[in-house]
Amino acid sequence: MRPADPALAPFAGRTCLVTGGLGFIGSNVVHALVAAGAHVRVVDALVPEHGGDRRNLDGIADQVGITVASVGDAAAVRPALDGVEFVFNVAGQVSHLESMSDPLRDLELNARSHLAFLEQLRHERPEATVVHTSTRQVYGRPRYLPVDEDHPTAPVDVNGVDKLAGEQFHLLYHAVHELRISALRLTNVYGPRQNLAKDGLGFLPVFVRRALAGETISLYGDGSQLRDCLHVDDVVRGLALAALSPDAPGEVFNLGHPEPLTLADIARLTIAAAGTASGVVNVPWPADHVRIDIGSFHGDFSKAKRILGWEPHVGFVAGVDDAVRYYRAHAWAVPPRPEPTA
Amino acid sequence: MRPADPALAPFAGRTCLVTGGLGFIGSNVVHALVAAGAHVRVVDALVPEHGGDRRNLDGIADQVGITVASVGDAAAVRPALDGVEFVFNVAGQVSHLESMSDPLRDLELNARSHLAFLEQLRHERPEATVVHTSTRQVYGRPRYLPVDEDHPTAPVDVNGVDKLAGEQFHLLYHAVHELRISALRLTNVYGPRQNLAKDGLGFLPVFVRRALAGETISLYGDGSQLRDCLHVDDVVRGLALAALSPDAPGEVFNLGHPEPLTLADIARLTIAAAGTASGVVNVPWPADHVRIDIGSFHGDFSKAKRILGWEPHVGFVAGVDDAVRYYRAHAWAVPPRPEPTA
Repeated sequence: MRPADPALAPFAGRTCLVTGGLGFIGSNVVHALVAAGAHVRVVDALVPEHGGDRRNLDGIADQVGITVASVGDAAAVRPALDGVEFVFNVAGQVSHLESMSDPLRDLELNARSHLAFLEQLRHERPEATVVHTSTRQVYGRPRYLPVDEDHPTAPVDVNGVDKLAGEQFHLLYHAVHELRISALRLTNVYGPRQNLAKDGLGFLPVFVRRALAGETISLYGDGSQLRDCLHVDDVVRGLALAALSPDAPGEVFNLGHPEPLTLADIARLTIAAAGTASGVVNVPWPADHVRIDIGSFHGDFSKAKRILGWEPHVGFVAGVDDAVRYYRAHAWAVPPRPEPTA
Repeated sequence: MRPADPALAPFAGRTCLVTGGLGFIGSNVVHALVAAGAHVRVVDALVPEHGGDRRNLDGIADQVGITVASVGDAAAVRPALDGVEFVFNVAGQVSHLESMSDPLRDLELNARSHLAFLEQLRHERPEATVVHTSTRQVYGRPRYLPVDEDHPTAPVDVNGVDKLAGEQFHLLYHAVHELRISALRLTNVYGPRQNLAKDGLGFLPVFVRRALAGETISLYGDGSQLRDCLHVDDVVRGLALAALSPDAPGEVFNLGHPEPLTLADIARLTIAAAGTASGVVNVPWPADHVRIDIGSFHGDFSKAKRILGWEPHVGFVAGVDDAVRYYRAHAWAVPPRPEPTA
């Protein structure tokens, strides 16, 4: 177990629900809450194509109440809401490409099920404090950098539309029904417990997987697009601070990083952390990617800093080293199958 | 039958589908297309609480192919798509209050069914030109007036969230799948065939109903909020111009009016048109309304004027007189039941 983050200390003895708690970000939230002495429950649908895996809670599973269900399944969720004080609503579908090939499923997982969950919270547990994980994808192609929370929202794929609707439902349930709800717009998150065996969960797990295997990393175009890479520990602390701040409800916050990196740099640093003979090759953009690509992204997180006291603590070099060490120690999370090299 | 609008002449002999074609705006589109000599099909779910009514097509029903189904019902919709050249996608749930009391239903009617319809269009009729009716509600509370299309979108009720998602799906299917799709953001629409017997369809039908019955019209607060009132004939012409313009696909256009009116003026002019002893009373805001009210709204429609050559032709005095004449001639559309007077 990692040392407890002092930002999580206020959750000692408190009852928390983490949706998507068997997935990448959710399971890291669960580990941090358990380390802080919270009573933790998980609702996770274990959607086969997603990153959820019971092994993400290895070592603490006996301390966590786990319900395998969609957040939209009111009957299954009901017992997990009893007495809950904090809800970290992390469940969701994250694949942009999958949202284009099966858009109705994405709408179900990112919007309809969350709306049903909010209706249930409103009726059954209105006193809970809720933090929702949204995404920079709601902005679409940036009109200016860095992107602040007032930047227009113009998603370029179905996933972005559905995540935006999900976020708006959450903020509405604060404005109209007075639930204590805030939302965090995350950028590219990486770190332990990200599922490397599944495709479509973003470029970072692909880079890490290939670097670990000593395989070539393909960069679309010249690899000059900027991204904020957020270590999951920083995201967990952001969720905790948003849940604890009296000024957070009704607000949406960017999480970002003061040092955006190019995709080429991210690939190079990932390979260096892995210490393998992996290399980088530039390839033309595939048609299905180019249509939903957003170019460079760099988020302005000054609002989170001002109101929540949040800023990232983990730089990419240390963060990706941490991720590599995790995967070297958890072979099950790395796919054994050979990869095509381009 | 009304005289054919020359803007509709290019639809002579063309095959058109009007979703929601038994409702208020949709049935007016159908009348205009039939008058222009188009081959017209209708898909309408006839949702009981909505404004759809077969009598809206009285006099032309034998010239229209009618399918009673949700636009999301692919099997039912399939025959109506065969050979279709133009789709006027007007179907939707319009009640803001109902969207708050039954949010999952609003999501189904305004977002999920439309996403399913777009998937079907993409696979089965990608060559069709589509115009979607969106709403000024996507803007939420205006940050400036008049509101142009670049104004941030921040809906204040579930209906607005769902309509925005529906609009974004349409524009995405242009950007990603190259369908010929545009969207019009409508403001308060009035005129013949608006269902006065149902509540929750906006303030205009309530005003007209009470004015016709000689009943008092209640204004929330001081009635000073501005609204653009659009006669449905102007909306029909806007839909036609958007369908015909080569520059429309991928674009969203406000429709508005150069003479915004206060709610108090709208009430006064409606009563004058009805010629009854109806009056106006100012009452406090009901709690469920105030939370989702947007204050004054006035739309900037210069983009529609520039690109589509559209501007409204009907002023409110002439327009509401036209509406009153319609209702006097169509008693079925006016509820016989007595109304409470506040």
